[in-house]
Amino acid sequence: MGGLTVFSALRRRLPGEDLLYLGDTARLPYGTKGSETIIRYALQATEKLVERRIKLLVVACNTATAIALPALQEAYAHLPVIGVVEPGAQAACEASRTGRILVLGTESTIRNQAYTRAIQALRPEARVTGISCSLFVSLAEEGWMDGPVMEAAAARYLAPVLGLPPATRPDCLVLACTHFPPLAPAIRAVLSFPLAVVDSAETTARAVESRLAGQGLFNPAPRNVFHFLTTDAPERFARVAGYFLSGPLAPESLELVVL
Amino acid sequence: MGGLTVFSALRRRLPGEDLLYLGDTARLPYGTKGSETIIRYALQATEKLVERRIKLLVVACNTATAIALPALQEAYAHLPVIGVVEPGAQAACEASRTGRILVLGTESTIRNQAYTRAIQALRPEARVTGISCSLFVSLAEEGWMDGPVMEAAAARYLAPVLGLPPATRPDCLVLACTHFPPLAPAIRAVLSFPLAVVDSAETTARAVESRLAGQGLFNPAPRNVFHFLTTDAPERFARVAGYFLSGPLAPESLELVVL
Repeated sequence: MGGLTVFSALRRRLPGEDLLYLGDTARLPYGTKGSETIIRYALQATEKLVERRIKLLVVACNTATAIALPALQEAYAHLPVIGVVEPGAQAACEASRTGRILVLGTESTIRNQAYTRAIQALRPEARVTGISCSLFVSLAEEGWMDGPVMEAAAARYLAPVLGLPPATRPDCLVLACTHFPPLAPAIRAVLSFPLAVVDSAETTARAVESRLAGQGLFNPAPRNVFHFLTTDAPERFARVAGYFLSGPLAPESLELVVL
Repeated sequence: MGGLTVFSALRRRLPGEDLLYLGDTARLPYGTKGSETIIRYALQATEKLVERRIKLLVVACNTATAIALPALQEAYAHLPVIGVVEPGAQAACEASRTGRILVLGTESTIRNQAYTRAIQALRPEARVTGISCSLFVSLAEEGWMDGPVMEAAAARYLAPVLGLPPATRPDCLVLACTHFPPLAPAIRAVLSFPLAVVDSAETTARAVESRLAGQGLFNPAPRNVFHFLTTDAPERFARVAGYFLSGPLAPESLELVVL
């Protein structure tokens, strides 16, 4: 579901492209699952999209990117495959002055340390602190973006950072899960010190734009055609999508597929 | 994972039986998924257990029981299949004096109204209030059984009940999700008025015992052999199982299977 934040950014930036979105709702969340399972699911989902002749694949999930991107790039060597980790890491390196960067993500993304590696590839001196915040995913899907539950969860997850002396606080926060952008105001309020907030949605959309342009695949004429595939209950998908997209989903743009 | 609360009750009550547990961790949670998906998953999981020649099946999940029990009983007509809803409903009817019963469960269980039907089949005059508490599942799996996050979530979910005049308050609470028993003290503290708390674990174990005895399948000699199948990352299963079972899981009793 969180991938819809990336979808929104793509829709805004690339109004000429046909967007085909697959939400693997029958097996979500990925963030608490093991690597082999995540790779298997990502390959199955990609197969379904390749059948529909996509020209470029965006892995709009930090967990799937962190765990499965190499497997996808190997399996589909002729398809441009763009993940959300590298654009996010690049944006963080640009936004941070001190190089102290806080990364909030799912259990699998944080354990895998994909962001730490991607950030330190660009800024070897960077100090990356990763905190896994599994409950934020459920909070976003429940639509509880603010209020006492969200605040209490943020205070608990962020306690190690809140206890830091001012001189060693991070100056940049990476929302390393596509579910987290709607939670940013609440996270910011709990942290209470100034820091730049980076999410991968905008930066990924920019990376897609430049890749399309570079390969001569870019379609500048406004069309704004999009279609959603969901692997489980379409009515729930439509409801939760409402928390992430501005405006409801047209039922005819939603299709059930089985993986 | 929550089915482990039922497993614990079965292990205590039926020390002579070999227990084979399947946790479909690659696709959990079921509680936010659609009916067709839940039925498909339950049939696949049962097939895997039937291959290992079980003599009785316990559907140790309220969502799977509420949605898939008829399909399982039809597909495996010669296998005794016991769900958690009927034993829980029976216990609630025995525990409630006023017939006002509060049922907390997952989104799918509550929407399906299986508890309301099962309770009113026994006590037609009963007034059943169902509240879906999806976030409780994640809280139990995160190990946050108490503290400010759990309290804030309980206060938010239970607000409609907290606002009731004393005369119309429920006098019985059904924990209609196998994840919820470890959360009972926190839920009780938020409700702050006296009520009987019923979970399906103990009552299901009693139902299994009497079914085994009735069919001459009961094995009274203590053996306590058990084996766990998990469809995803065994190390996570072992860790989360620690929140539900008393004592850690022996690695050799845990096996990965793919559904």
